[in-house]
Order: sequence, then structure tokens, then C-alpha cells
Amino acid sequence: MKNKFSVYIDKLQQTITSHIEKLDGKSKFIKDNWVREKGGGGLTMVLENGNIFEKAGVNVSKVFGELPDSMSEILSVNQSDFFACGISLVLHPKNPMAPTFHANLRYFELYKNNKLKDSWFGGGLDLTPYYIFDEDVVHFHESCKKVCDKYNEKFYQDYKKKCDEYFWNTHRNEARGVGGLFFDYCRKNDKMTIEHWFSFIADLGNCFLESYCPIIEKRKDLIYNKEQLKWQQIRRGRYVEFNLLHDKGTLFGLKTNGRIESILISMPPKAEWAYNIVPKRGSKEEKLLKILKTPKTWI
Amino acid sequence: MKNKFSVYIDKLQQTITSHIEKLDGKSKFIKDNWVREKGGGGLTMVLENGNIFEKAGVNVSKVFGELPDSMSEILSVNQSDFFACGISLVLHPKNPMAPTFHANLRYFELYKNNKLKDSWFGGGLDLTPYYIFDEDVVHFHESCKKVCDKYNEKFYQDYKKKCDEYFWNTHRNEARGVGGLFFDYCRKNDKMTIEHWFSFIADLGNCFLESYCPIIEKRKDLIYNKEQLKWQQIRRGRYVEFNLLHDKGTLFGLKTNGRIESILISMPPKAEWAYNIVPKRGSKEEKLLKILKTPKTWI
Repeated sequence: MKNKFSVYIDKLQQTITSHIEKLDGKSKFIKDNWVREKGGGGLTMVLENGNIFEKAGVNVSKVFGELPDSMSEILSVNQSDFFACGISLVLHPKNPMAPTFHANLRYFELYKNNKLKDSWFGGGLDLTPYYIFDEDVVHFHESCKKVCDKYNEKFYQDYKKKCDEYFWNTHRNEARGVGGLFFDYCRKNDKMTIEHWFSFIADLGNCFLESYCPIIEKRKDLIYNKEQLKWQQIRRGRYVEFNLLHDKGTLFGLKTNGRIESILISMPPKAEWAYNIVPKRGSKEEKLLKILKTPKTWI
Repeated sequence: MKNKFSVYIDKLQQTITSHIEKLDGKSKFIKDNWVREKGGGGLTMVLENGNIFEKAGVNVSKVFGELPDSMSEILSVNQSDFFACGISLVLHPKNPMAPTFHANLRYFELYKNNKLKDSWFGGGLDLTPYYIFDEDVVHFHESCKKVCDKYNEKFYQDYKKKCDEYFWNTHRNEARGVGGLFFDYCRKNDKMTIEHWFSFIADLGNCFLESYCPIIEKRKDLIYNKEQLKWQQIRRGRYVEFNLLHDKGTLFGLKTNGRIESILISMPPKAEWAYNIVPKRGSKEEKLLKILKTPKTWI
């Protein structure tokens, strides 16, 4: 499975970056191969200052070796060896009318005395708009649901809920965005073999572009003003706050001496903080905040 | 002491904000009185988009009541009552040649059955330049040392070291800035009564403007280009990273439902993240990084 998933994420990285480059039409991805001292490495691909995308990061990593102590604690296991690989992407468009997209797919194996002891998938995808277009959010959630429903009619509901819970900016008492899916520790069980899980994960990966690109196509050329751009920057400040204060992946990566530049490609290119910003009553900015305060059922 | 220090920080807030307003010549501080549900409150003062200062925040808070559990843990005490008050300030100038200034002075009292059981001062001040002018950093450290030496010839050395250790961006393996002083749990002892500590703290507070303003006067009108402004923004990204990942005060405030807008006035007005920025060899940007990697002895 580790080889199968490895091959899959390499191909997905290739497909997505080619598509994004073509869509953008200006900037190209730079490729950065990196090596992890204690085993493994990855390929970080970043596009900056594009026509459509202010920043796009697509990172593949494949790491293995002795399980770090901090990870043994989280997983409640003794000294073990591990293999982990995954793909993560963040797309920050220039136009404030277009939402930020984030996704991650990962696979984990645990070994004891060279024997496979446990393995699971995790991941998700979520959308962070600065202005709400209901039809965009509905389209995104429908794409998520379509894949989920192929496997289990409860998946969408469960993983949508987990996503709303995970991407919650506790200190602001608001969601980071309008959610999507989030799942972890997807192990083989009565209903799903690990092959089934792979199939689910791969279907999801294959729908990333379909879930997001129609939205970007619709919004990339909308007219916007200075105030709307400022609002995008302020909201990107909240994105930064989530990533540095609450995102387990980011904090874990930083604690375990992960590769900083690859971990932090999720950061928005620019962010602003201003004192006590309160949107006008009845404004589109206020509409966004209301939705972020109480995650909605979109379908 | 709590009344004495309360009165002192109110006056200091007044003095500093008046001076900064006069210096800036354009923007005025807005005043925001706030109340803490479980006891106490504060006065947050913020100036934005000035001539010289892009953002200046000066916050006084005086809070009391039952000690929150998270704080009991840190202090290793059982159920107690507390009183805490302090002033904190952050000055983010527009010109990238001028450094950011941060300072904080605080006093804490712990009670059991209405009896005072413990009390101490804490605080510090530190400088975060984007470009290094040796004479500015030396002036800043000399101002710190002058106050320290009045009380104990070891203070400067000890508190300078603590400052370098505290403002360390672990995940980047570099200092946030060029340091200053940092101290905590300053209790009465053989050499210093709590009155002596108050006198030390007040002397420090009174030297804030003297330690920083000559620097801002020298640098505020220097010419700079787009690339230098970009560098300032990138470095402000590191400031954000420190505050949200490592700053105990910020994290504690956010965990204990402190007033978000007052806690986060320390955030820079704008910040940027770009992939893998490496300054040119021999550049001024590289000089800064070298200094941040191994904190220097400035005096």
C-alpha cells in the first residue's frame, strides 16, 4: 500500500500543478527536492505572484525511520518504526472574491520489529472564502458528498462535522472557513479494507480540481475594490492565527524539526491585523462572519 | 503596592501615548475601556496608520478574582485569589530602517483566605530591527544597563541573557530581535524589598521613551525602497510566528479567554510569507540574520 499510495500522490502532485500552471497562465511552479536527515524527504512545489494565484503550494513528503518521541506519545505506542507519506496543497488566489483552498491526504504505517502493526489514512479538504457565494459553497460540498456517498452514506455527514470542529478558531469563536471534509485514523474494518480506503482517498484526490476550479473560474475576474482587498488581508490574518495556534499538523511539524519552508507554505502570502474590525450591519463582510460563527448545513 | 503600581502604569500609559502622538503628528490614539467578566478590566489604546507609526498599541489591564485553573497549574498553587496588573506596548514604525519596540511591566499578587501570600514583578523590553544600525542597538542596551546598574551590577547581564533566551524563535533557530531585558518572579529577597523592585520597574518604565525615541528620530525619515519594505514584511511574519507559536503571554491570554483585541494588538499591521527567502551574500539582510542566529554582546 505504501508504494501504491506513494505513486498515487506523486501523480496527483503532477496533475494538480500542471493544471494550476495552465490556469494561471503567468507564474510557474518552482520545484524543491529536500531530504530528511533521519529518513526520507519530499518534493515541495511553489508558485508565487501568478495572474490568478498569489501563492500555490503543493507538497509531497515521504518520511520514515524511528518514531519520534512526540509522535509515540500522541499515538500511545512504545518505540516503533514508522512510514508516513502525504500530499498537501494550499491555493491562495489574488482576487478576494475567490476562496482559498486547502487539502491534505496522508497514509501512515507503524512497525514493531520490522512487522507492520498498524496502518491508516487521514486527510480532508476545506474552503476559506472571503466573500460568500452560496452556490460556490454548495458546489464544493456537493463534490465532497458525491465521493463520500460512493463509499458510505454516513461519511459526508460525519466528516463534514469533523471538519467544522477541526477548523475552529477557538480564540475567535469562529470557523476558519466554510468547511468540507476532515477524517483521520481510517483503518480497515468490517466494511472497508485498506484497499477500499485507498480507493476513497484516491477518488477524493481526483476530485480536488473539480471541487475548486469551477469556483475559481467564476470568481477570478470579478471586480473588487481596496476595501475588499483589505478585508481579504484581515481574514488571511485569521488563517495565520489558525495555522500557528491550532493546526495540529503545523505545530507537530514545527515541534519535530520538520522542514520549515514546506510546513509553512500553507501561510498566506500577505496578512493584516487591524484593531477591532467590525463589519457594517447588513454588509457582505458581516454575512461571512455570521456564517463562520455557526457552521451551516450546505446540502 | 497594587494601588501604587496601578497608579504608576496609568500615568506611564498617559505619558507614552501623549509623546507618541506628538512625535507621530498625524494619527491619534483611540481609547477602548473594557471590562473583564470575572473581575477587573483595562484600557486599550491604539494608534494606526500614522506618519511614523504604522501601528502603536499601549494596553493597561487590572484583573482580579479566582485564579483560573490554567494559571494555578503554572504557578503550582491550589485554589487562590489573584490580582494582576500591567502595561504592555508595541510600536511598529512604517520605515523599515526603524525597529519595532516592545515592552511589558507587570505585578502579581496571590491570596489565600483574603491574606496576601505572594507577590512579584515581571516584565522587560526588547528591540526588533529589520536593518541593523550598531549604534542604535548599543544605545538601546546602554539604556537598559544604566537602569539595571543602579540596582544590581548583575541585573543587566542576567536579564539580557533571559531576554535572548525568551525571544527565541525555536522553529527558525533565530532570535526575534536584538534583545534587551526580560525578568519574572522578582520577589522580595535579602537585597531587594518589594519597594525596591517597584523602584527598579518604575525606573525602567520611565526609560522606555529614552531608550527608543532617539532611534526612531534618527531612522524615521531614511529613504528606503520596495525590496527593503518587502524585507520588513517578511521579518514581521517572523514576529507573528513568535507571538502565536512561542509567546507565553499571548498563548496564556488566548487560552484563558482574555480580551482578544487587546492581546493581539502586539501583532504587526501587515506581514508577508514568501517561499525560502535567502538574502544575498554580504547584504544588509544577511547581516541581520547572522546577528539573530547568535545573540551578540552589545556592550
